[in-house]
Amino acid sequence: MSDSFGYSTKISVTAEDKTQFVEFAKRTVRAAGAATLPFFRSDIEVLNKAGDGQFDPVTEADRAAETVIRDALAESFPTHGVYGEEYGYQTGNGLTWVIDPIDGTRAFMTGMLHWGVLLGLFDGDVPIVGAMYQPYTQELFYGDGERTFFAQGDAERQLRTSLCDELGNAVLATTGFEWFEQEDRLRFDQLRSEVQLWRTGGDCYIYGLVAMGHVHLGTDASLNPYDIQALIPIVQGAGGVVTTYDGGNASMGGAVLASANEVLHRKALDALSRR
Amino acid sequence: MSDSFGYSTKISVTAEDKTQFVEFAKRTVRAAGAATLPFFRSDIEVLNKAGDGQFDPVTEADRAAETVIRDALAESFPTHGVYGEEYGYQTGNGLTWVIDPIDGTRAFMTGMLHWGVLLGLFDGDVPIVGAMYQPYTQELFYGDGERTFFAQGDAERQLRTSLCDELGNAVLATTGFEWFEQEDRLRFDQLRSEVQLWRTGGDCYIYGLVAMGHVHLGTDASLNPYDIQALIPIVQGAGGVVTTYDGGNASMGGAVLASANEVLHRKALDALSRR
Repeated sequence: MSDSFGYSTKISVTAEDKTQFVEFAKRTVRAAGAATLPFFRSDIEVLNKAGDGQFDPVTEADRAAETVIRDALAESFPTHGVYGEEYGYQTGNGLTWVIDPIDGTRAFMTGMLHWGVLLGLFDGDVPIVGAMYQPYTQELFYGDGERTFFAQGDAERQLRTSLCDELGNAVLATTGFEWFEQEDRLRFDQLRSEVQLWRTGGDCYIYGLVAMGHVHLGTDASLNPYDIQALIPIVQGAGGVVTTYDGGNASMGGAVLASANEVLHRKALDALSRR
Repeated sequence: MSDSFGYSTKISVTAEDKTQFVEFAKRTVRAAGAATLPFFRSDIEVLNKAGDGQFDPVTEADRAAETVIRDALAESFPTHGVYGEEYGYQTGNGLTWVIDPIDGTRAFMTGMLHWGVLLGLFDGDVPIVGAMYQPYTQELFYGDGERTFFAQGDAERQLRTSLCDELGNAVLATTGFEWFEQEDRLRFDQLRSEVQLWRTGGDCYIYGLVAMGHVHLGTDASLNPYDIQALIPIVQGAGGVVTTYDGGNASMGGAVLASANEVLHRKALDALSRR
């Protein structure tokens, strides 16, 4: 990934550019989310009977959402790169929009609510803008690494992470440790043994709730870049920290930890390294 | 539980009674749900600073919801019994309203969406009416064992479970197997090994989605009566089946399996017994 997707020099982005990118991300994840809804909780048995065989609403929804985003990019930022789960990587000027059309596909396909459309903007080193949208609940999380907001309908508020700085008081969430590789699983188990409460399930929602202050530690392993990039500026803009388990740049995914604040993050990384 | 909570003879309930009970359940879970919302995603740190110490929004929300339901019962059905998670059991005429004011407290406390207010009506042998309400998404599931509906705002539709009758095509969901006792865990693991896809998390939502047709098998162990009673008429009314792992009456909780239909249920019980 880093061979084809990294850049030797970062693109410089002005404050005005960034404002424009944030507005684009907000508008575009909302449009992409709307395109997924006809497939959510759709009657798969009826659709399969009507069609000529296997109809997969998740794949259809994924493609519909990613197409909306790619079309909007071609219109607004034709020189930028694009990297998406469904349609791959297309190089650009060094700024790359990173798309997960539906993060939480298992939730989507079972009618659960913890899924969302993710769109991040990668500057060649780190993501500088991120947006996550759940169209069924009309919840939009977005951030630029400095500030993060939550919008629902016309209501909007700035988000701040929790002040919790003790593992013993912390709530830890992970999507599911069945995807952890052996070593990551042992490290996760060590962290899990030191927190107050842990729970599984959530996908992108976990990181939105870290930004919102209700989850203190979010972690997943075996992540792809498009699973995490949009979420990094959201967590950071609310005061949180996101790195790999070894404290490095989380932009390329892998085993990632998001914490409510620096102090808690350091303690959690310590726990992860005690294995 | 069965000593104090079972009755030697079932109360007879007319169709008119039942309609009245269904309408009461719908109205009352909605009112109880509204009472929980001020505590959902509330700023715990601000509340703790304002108060004299530990403020627990889940406990407050639980109590607020159960109080709304108990007050409504005292008004509408003063002779009926009540059994709730927060305020215990009060005997009545043989009909008992069974309350879980917030099912999915971990989800509630972390700002996640898979939780709901549960209200069932137990006739001394089985629950005959059930309602589940998620006030944040305004989703209401309700059933009387013969028909089940999903309502959101003014829209309402009847629910039917899936026709899926092969384990190899089935989606299995459980809230989390960390609460399974050893033997139940082994039985669950056997079932899990035979289905197409499984996922954790969901609490009451799992059973709503079995009724809706998107989850084919839902199971949890170590359930209390108030965790499951409201959900049984919802699943059954949509065409599903709910029993204990041994095929018995699930009203008193324990290790419970809900299936989309009889054929799938039989196959799943077989898998659970292969351990």
